[in-house]
Amino acid sequence: MDYQGVLEEVAAHAKPLVRQGKVADYIPALERVSPDRFGIALADINGDVYGVGDWEVPFSVQSVSKAFSLALVLAEGDQSIWERVGREPSGTPFNSLVQLEWEHGIPRNPFINAGALVVTDRLQTLTGDASTAMLDFLREESGNPDIGFDRAVAGSEADHGDRNAALAHFMASFGNLENPVPSVIEHYFWQCSIEMSCRDLATAGGFLARHGLRADGSRLLAARDAKRINAVMLTCGTYDAAGEFAYRVGLPAKSGVGGGIVAIVPGRCTLCVWSPGLDARGNSVAGAAALDHFTTLTGWSVF
Amino acid sequence: MDYQGVLEEVAAHAKPLVRQGKVADYIPALERVSPDRFGIALADINGDVYGVGDWEVPFSVQSVSKAFSLALVLAEGDQSIWERVGREPSGTPFNSLVQLEWEHGIPRNPFINAGALVVTDRLQTLTGDASTAMLDFLREESGNPDIGFDRAVAGSEADHGDRNAALAHFMASFGNLENPVPSVIEHYFWQCSIEMSCRDLATAGGFLARHGLRADGSRLLAARDAKRINAVMLTCGTYDAAGEFAYRVGLPAKSGVGGGIVAIVPGRCTLCVWSPGLDARGNSVAGAAALDHFTTLTGWSVF
Amino acid sequence: MDYQGVLEEVAAHAKPLVRQGKVADYIPALERVSPDRFGIALADINGDVYGVGDWEVPFSVQSVSKAFSLALVLAEGDQSIWERVGREPSGTPFNSLVQLEWEHGIPRNPFINAGALVVTDRLQTLTGDASTAMLDFLREESGNPDIGFDRAVAGSEADHGDRNAALAHFMASFGNLENPVPSVIEHYFWQCSIEMSCRDLATAGGFLARHGLRADGSRLLAARDAKRINAVMLTCGTYDAAGEFAYRVGLPAKSGVGGGIVAIVPGRCTLCVWSPGLDARGNSVAGAAALDHFTTLTGWSVF
Amino acid sequence: MDYQGVLEEVAAHAKPLVRQGKVADYIPALERVSPDRFGIALADINGDVYGVGDWEVPFSVQSVSKAFSLALVLAEGDQSIWERVGREPSGTPFNSLVQLEWEHGIPRNPFINAGALVVTDRLQTLTGDASTAMLDFLREESGNPDIGFDRAVAGSEADHGDRNAALAHFMASFGNLENPVPSVIEHYFWQCSIEMSCRDLATAGGFLARHGLRADGSRLLAARDAKRINAVMLTCGTYDAAGEFAYRVGLPAKSGVGGGIVAIVPGRCTLCVWSPGLDARGNSVAGAAALDHFTTLTGWSVF
Repeated sequence: MDYQGVLEEVAAHAKPLVRQGKVADYIPALERVSPDRFGIALADINGDVYGVGDWEVPFSVQSVSKAFSLALVLAEGDQSIWERVGREPSGTPFNSLVQLEWEHGIPRNPFINAGALVVTDRLQTLTGDASTAMLDFLREESGNPDIGFDRAVAGSEADHGDRNAALAHFMASFGNLENPVPSVIEHYFWQCSIEMSCRDLATAGGFLARHGLRADGSRLLAARDAKRINAVMLTCGTYDAAGEFAYRVGLPAKSGVGGGIVAIVPGRCTLCVWSPGLDARGNSVAGAAALDHFTTLTGWSVF
Repeated sequence: MDYQGVLEEVAAHAKPLVRQGKVADYIPALERVSPDRFGIALADINGDVYGVGDWEVPFSVQSVSKAFSLALVLAEGDQSIWERVGREPSGTPFNSLVQLEWEHGIPRNPFINAGALVVTDRLQTLTGDASTAMLDFLREESGNPDIGFDRAVAGSEADHGDRNAALAHFMASFGNLENPVPSVIEHYFWQCSIEMSCRDLATAGGFLARHGLRADGSRLLAARDAKRINAVMLTCGTYDAAGEFAYRVGLPAKSGVGGGIVAIVPGRCTLCVWSPGLDARGNSVAGAAALDHFTTLTGWSVF
Repeated sequence: MDYQGVLEEVAAHAKPLVRQGKVADYIPALERVSPDRFGIALADINGDVYGVGDWEVPFSVQSVSKAFSLALVLAEGDQSIWERVGREPSGTPFNSLVQLEWEHGIPRNPFINAGALVVTDRLQTLTGDASTAMLDFLREESGNPDIGFDRAVAGSEADHGDRNAALAHFMASFGNLENPVPSVIEHYFWQCSIEMSCRDLATAGGFLARHGLRADGSRLLAARDAKRINAVMLTCGTYDAAGEFAYRVGLPAKSGVGGGIVAIVPGRCTLCVWSPGLDARGNSVAGAAALDHFTTLTGWSVF
Repeated sequence: MDYQGVLEEVAAHAKPLVRQGKVADYIPALERVSPDRFGIALADINGDVYGVGDWEVPFSVQSVSKAFSLALVLAEGDQSIWERVGREPSGTPFNSLVQLEWEHGIPRNPFINAGALVVTDRLQTLTGDASTAMLDFLREESGNPDIGFDRAVAGSEADHGDRNAALAHFMASFGNLENPVPSVIEHYFWQCSIEMSCRDLATAGGFLARHGLRADGSRLLAARDAKRINAVMLTCGTYDAAGEFAYRVGLPAKSGVGGGIVAIVPGRCTLCVWSPGLDARGNSVAGAAALDHFTTLTGWSVF
């Protein structure tokens, strides 16, 4: 397949939508990004990378990091995480807290904030330094040693972090955190603040298209676990729009409020698209349209 | 692939679990089925059918019918159904009614009862006789003219139908039903009461593996709509266990409390497994285990 | 105390507010009432009645009837009703259905619609004709044989009754109705459609100020039960504004969407105020202001 | 009235129930109290005090303090508190967090934990030291300079305070706290840890029976505000059992998990009863029975 040609056609289709969404403004550091940005990259399973537009410009990965922290916990051979977090979609946003109460402090899945806090807590226990462990992995896997944290974003998150602190304390009240609340929240914010480009993310997420094999051919995850992460991404990876995303795009994906979306075509390639304008549910408008058009052109939805 | 051999291995693996679940007992007509039943059938996209165990014994399709009623509405070219029902997973069961209220009478997806009532209401409007339209389709597509309604089951459902009547009246109060409540409920119950075997269902569901083509090669649905039904099956098809089912099995599927599950391997085949013992969420215990083992043996999860 | 003078001062204070509320418009028959109406009546425990404004004009009692149906069930010596309905305030309106589910079909209190349906169901069992039993009582107690049902209102309620039908079927699914759903709903609507004036209602509600004694001195209720009805009126009688009403007015009261409010000063008198303009929670704006001013002038809040 | 005689009869009636409840065990410091304790005190509006049993033994006031912190805020002339906290009963406990979300961080009333945190926050702003301000008031009003904090209880609460921290951070995320979360929580815990006897509490709460006048005859609150606090106590003062408590006892009251209940007979007297065994909703079993019997003997329910 002519990947470069496909990406160009996809970009031509999606770029007119860049101004339709709204840039995340809950923290000042994100608000400053230009809404006109658009980039898309594709890394095939052999490691060849293609890209269009702003595909080499770093942006804040935000919740896209949740897919990597889950992978790193499972890479440690730790299936016990599934006793502390579920695998079901979360329904409407207003339910997040009542569900935590109803289900005794067990978050519905690893990709809602509560679930990601539990995964970070576990990664912290397993590695002693959850955010550094993730940064090291992302640098190595993408081959880009310049990937780093954005201090301004991490600090800004902390200043506006009462809701995550509420979730963490609430889970702690049910005994579902191993580390002190402030330490878990701090590592969680640092992970979210990592800056990467579409190229970096498409490359770093290659192991999910390669059924668990890293870029160097060594095994990060059992094939079964790689498939499972893809399954959780498909059912829970795009906030409250996972059903809609599966319906339109039909690929496992994880989105972030920085405007990035990583999507997996199992056995073929990993895509990353970036455009900061978000829809009401927090997913990149132009990004989702680009992936929709990609599966239309290639026929590579998993369905 | 040696389908017959695979099915036999799958059956050997799953049959020991038949007594672990609990046969549905909310209506007497279902309660009388033996918990020891187990059958599995596979219809490939060419129409060849393979089967093991009780694969030719008719059972009550119950909610498996919801996948067919959605397909028949979309086959009429009616995308307007999506203005009256969503495509998102429904979260925990206790939310069903509050979600209807919160979302102004729009059910979350076509596979929860509220959503299926809306789809049946639409099919009734489009065809004038929703349950007969479905029966005709199933007979024709499976090549089995003996498929029929089970009067005892339909009557029994009606006698215990207060919860569905509550849902229907509640949606009517929001203006989301076109036909009178009693008529919608009646057609809904008749659809659920249809009796089919694993062979019948695997054959009748072939169009979902064939990207919308019927058994005779004519087109029922656009390829895009067939994929979309598969997507909704994957995210919403197995009650509140859709996330878990995607994680374990990784195939689009629709289950029913009669113990049947239809699963799709897009482009390859349609499976139907039947065993009446259900888990706490209403899915066949041995049936889910069989499909899990099937994807393990074949590697044919969509992820 | 100069009751007539107090009522005149109260009316002068409250009448300017008659146009601030919104007349109930969910059924056409109610919508036609002029928003300018205002009447107030006071019946002391000796049966002397005072009134101002439109105090002799009949209006639709609507939910004010719920206080009388509860009293009539308790008058039959039936405490078993408390096993089928609770005595706690209901919280926010959006909870009504989820609370019914959470609490297994037991409504929180007898004054929300679900609870009143259960009370009507019980009254139907006890009397064989719940709506006639109530009408007979109200005529006798008020001394007004002309009190009657408003057929247009009852029919209009039935035409828009899907939400009450949903509640009734839902409770039936939990086994919390004794009579067929359509019959319970019909009697419920007929009770709500009764037309009475402020004079009629203040007189008919005298037994709650007289600790259970009827107008003729005979005992309807044990003193304990009369006090208990007052307690439930104070905590649950004014929809979701019971806390606010207790805070402002400080009297047991039951309101209706027809714009009527009956309030009790235990040991002294019963008041009824009517003005059709409602606030967002369904209580008469001018009516609540009148009762607020009444307790300010007299110091007769229960607190 | 022979208060001493009434209290003795009440005590004889209620003491057999002391072992029916369960002593609060969520913090070790409370768990150590003997379940056999029972005391009751009555302070009439002239300041005469009567008592029976363990009425002079100090116990942990816990949530009884919430009535005093509300009074102290209103005593500062601060009605703006009502923009930050509601006056409605809270419904079922599982709703607490979803209600906070639904109502944008505004707690339903000042006596649920979330509401009391807001009141403490306001008192902290108004006085500069919320817990000392309360201690000073309680010492002065009861005439007992030995009243003090229980450091062990306060520390123990902090060690098990994740749920309150979650509530506070959640409200902070909606902008409904003025002071830093840790400081608000600390003052809240210190207030709860105050130790007082039935004598102390009945005396200190006298201003609510005297329509706002302090023991020395000076005015703490406008009569209107004293009545309003009583109204809020009646509708919201006994956790999720306020409706039941109004139905049985019929007096404004505030309970605490230390086993104390303060109840008001407006214009007559203030009662305090203590017995550590709690029912499922957190109210003293023998204490509620004692107050029930008190109103039965005296006829002094407000209804």
